[in-house]
Amino acid sequence: MALPVTFLSDYGYDDEFAGVCRAVIARIAPDAAVVDLTHGIARHDVGGGALVLAAALPYTPPGVHLAIVDPGVGSPRRALAVRMATEERILVGPDNGLLWPAIARFGGPVEAVDVSLSPFRLEPISATFHGRDIFAPVAANLARGAVLREAGHSLDPAELERFEPAPTRAERGVATAPVVRVDRFGNAILGIAEADLPATGLLLGHPVEVEAASGAREAIYARAFAEVAEGQLLVYLDSTGWLALAVNRGSAVELLGLAAGDEVTLRAE
Amino acid sequence: MALPVTFLSDYGYDDEFAGVCRAVIARIAPDAAVVDLTHGIARHDVGGGALVLAAALPYTPPGVHLAIVDPGVGSPRRALAVRMATEERILVGPDNGLLWPAIARFGGPVEAVDVSLSPFRLEPISATFHGRDIFAPVAANLARGAVLREAGHSLDPAELERFEPAPTRAERGVATAPVVRVDRFGNAILGIAEADLPATGLLLGHPVEVEAASGAREAIYARAFAEVAEGQLLVYLDSTGWLALAVNRGSAVELLGLAAGDEVTLRAE
Amino acid sequence: MALPVTFLSDYGYDDEFAGVCRAVIARIAPDAAVVDLTHGIARHDVGGGALVLAAALPYTPPGVHLAIVDPGVGSPRRALAVRMATEERILVGPDNGLLWPAIARFGGPVEAVDVSLSPFRLEPISATFHGRDIFAPVAANLARGAVLREAGHSLDPAELERFEPAPTRAERGVATAPVVRVDRFGNAILGIAEADLPATGLLLGHPVEVEAASGAREAIYARAFAEVAEGQLLVYLDSTGWLALAVNRGSAVELLGLAAGDEVTLRAE
Repeated sequence: MALPVTFLSDYGYDDEFAGVCRAVIARIAPDAAVVDLTHGIARHDVGGGALVLAAALPYTPPGVHLAIVDPGVGSPRRALAVRMATEERILVGPDNGLLWPAIARFGGPVEAVDVSLSPFRLEPISATFHGRDIFAPVAANLARGAVLREAGHSLDPAELERFEPAPTRAERGVATAPVVRVDRFGNAILGIAEADLPATGLLLGHPVEVEAASGAREAIYARAFAEVAEGQLLVYLDSTGWLALAVNRGSAVELLGLAAGDEVTLRAE
Repeated sequence: MALPVTFLSDYGYDDEFAGVCRAVIARIAPDAAVVDLTHGIARHDVGGGALVLAAALPYTPPGVHLAIVDPGVGSPRRALAVRMATEERILVGPDNGLLWPAIARFGGPVEAVDVSLSPFRLEPISATFHGRDIFAPVAANLARGAVLREAGHSLDPAELERFEPAPTRAERGVATAPVVRVDRFGNAILGIAEADLPATGLLLGHPVEVEAASGAREAIYARAFAEVAEGQLLVYLDSTGWLALAVNRGSAVELLGLAAGDEVTLRAE
Repeated sequence: MALPVTFLSDYGYDDEFAGVCRAVIARIAPDAAVVDLTHGIARHDVGGGALVLAAALPYTPPGVHLAIVDPGVGSPRRALAVRMATEERILVGPDNGLLWPAIARFGGPVEAVDVSLSPFRLEPISATFHGRDIFAPVAANLARGAVLREAGHSLDPAELERFEPAPTRAERGVATAPVVRVDRFGNAILGIAEADLPATGLLLGHPVEVEAASGAREAIYARAFAEVAEGQLLVYLDSTGWLALAVNRGSAVELLGLAAGDEVTLRAE
């Protein structure tokens, strides 16, 4: 029985890119279940994709994890397959930091290969669609039981590109952080991890001043949307372990005019 | 062999919400086929989701039917698993009316459990993502053979939240109804069910006056788009059993400036 | 074991149309793997769908290929299942040219049946959703082993509707072609196939003048995005074998104000 393959990308849904990768996998490893995590990562948003992948991975079955957000396709950036220390999980994708937070979450890399010229590649390799020609066939072959060293030539795992989100500035009740991403529900996820909560001085049920470029507003630090009135702004710890802004039955993104990358300051009151 | 799981939600495609639920199911019930019905239900549109689910279910294989449109996540609303009278089908989702039209279509509920504290839940339960932490793991365990009473504590099926679409006003050739939803093809589905057709006085091939806020226009009551000229407005019985408005090779939504919730009056001529 | 079914359509993701077709297949052929190629073909864009299907098919496993872009649903257009000369592949879809480039790519049709009144159809057949009522059940039954002549009545394969993209005008270093489609990454695929490259006079690494309605600009004919500076317009042979326009880390569609159908002229310099 083949290993399951999870699949995340910025390929979107209008085009056939993700579907052709799924087809390549089905051709090589017909028994492998393919679990699409999302193909809606913003175009070329390596950082956003990296955070989504790392947050999703603990909920996925161990197996092969294909991830493609690859603005440097066709450049000399390496193409990777990486085995992690804890659990039997292999990540496949470009060496641009996309895989790093997920690797770090599972104990770091223990074995890595460069698959740019993998024997599993489809020839001729196009210059613009390595998902189809390199990453998907490598993932599929690993899913059906190939061992990592068959997929490419060995790399020192210490050489992998890293991606470290900007460190949170949070002390004595004032925390400043970027909006890491916004979601379909109008929530804005901030770059403040659960571990940094104590420094923010936030207290459940208490007010928080939220300052964005559009001005300052009062929010409540709550556990769930439904704990505050409809239309009320709230700060909450989101399901992936990051502080976030929401409006109950509304949109924090609209209310505050936020986009990914904007800076927000929270002041415990 | 596990039961198939169908999956409908308002999670959309930009984010990983639906994908993470699929991953949770794949982890617990690797043999279960997951059939995505759609994740494009409009945000928080419980009524629209309920109608789509009820219309789709007769075409799905019996099994477990996961449905999540859940504006009250984190409030005390119950989380349900329900077995229906006819066929071996179990519905899983929030107790907010979303499941009701589907339940009614299959003979009503015969057994129901509250799964809010299901032994199958993933801990810690987040306050904002019960799809991942409650609904998906409950659905997956039921798909791999758990019986309903293992999934939560018993409820009186008579206590379930109901959703009843507004009754159609149709008599003597004048029918007024809301636009229930609009689709990608620019068609507007009206809240007039097949059973109410006789009261509308519509006759196939005959003209109908369609009055919307933007004004009145003449349509033809036809069976298929291709029966009328290109650009012609038509009224037709759609594939899910509701009257609908379309423009052959065009868009009734654009022509009449319609959105879900708008009221439309049809006058047989 | 059932054959895999690939699935392409213009059903989009907001509605349940593709999901209901998947459900119908799962009901009839529970063992058949369904590989979604894309449901994001532009509404009613038979030509675009035809080119995407033909380009994707060589990467898919042999089996049944369901394709639905069907502006004439409900008209007397035929519904087809077609077996191709090379490899064991069966195409299922409307007889409007959508299937033709794929059929041509695999050696032409060797056997065809009209499935409009297929014994595998779901009754009652709606006038507007043949995907659910005809195409999906026919594809599912073929996937589980039915032979083609059981699916409908025989047709002369020479009678199938054809779709031939406009011939490329390219000679002495001047090539004029329509934009065939634009993708999520802002790339514009032109109707100039690899075979017509010599007539264009393009030389790798050399400049090209690109003239669109918005004016003329200089591009570079390159192999990969990353070979040119950020923000630079390039002409390249895309991964499906067509010439295309891109901007490295930007959008050719935005830069040149292009849409599908627009005409573009390339002049080798």
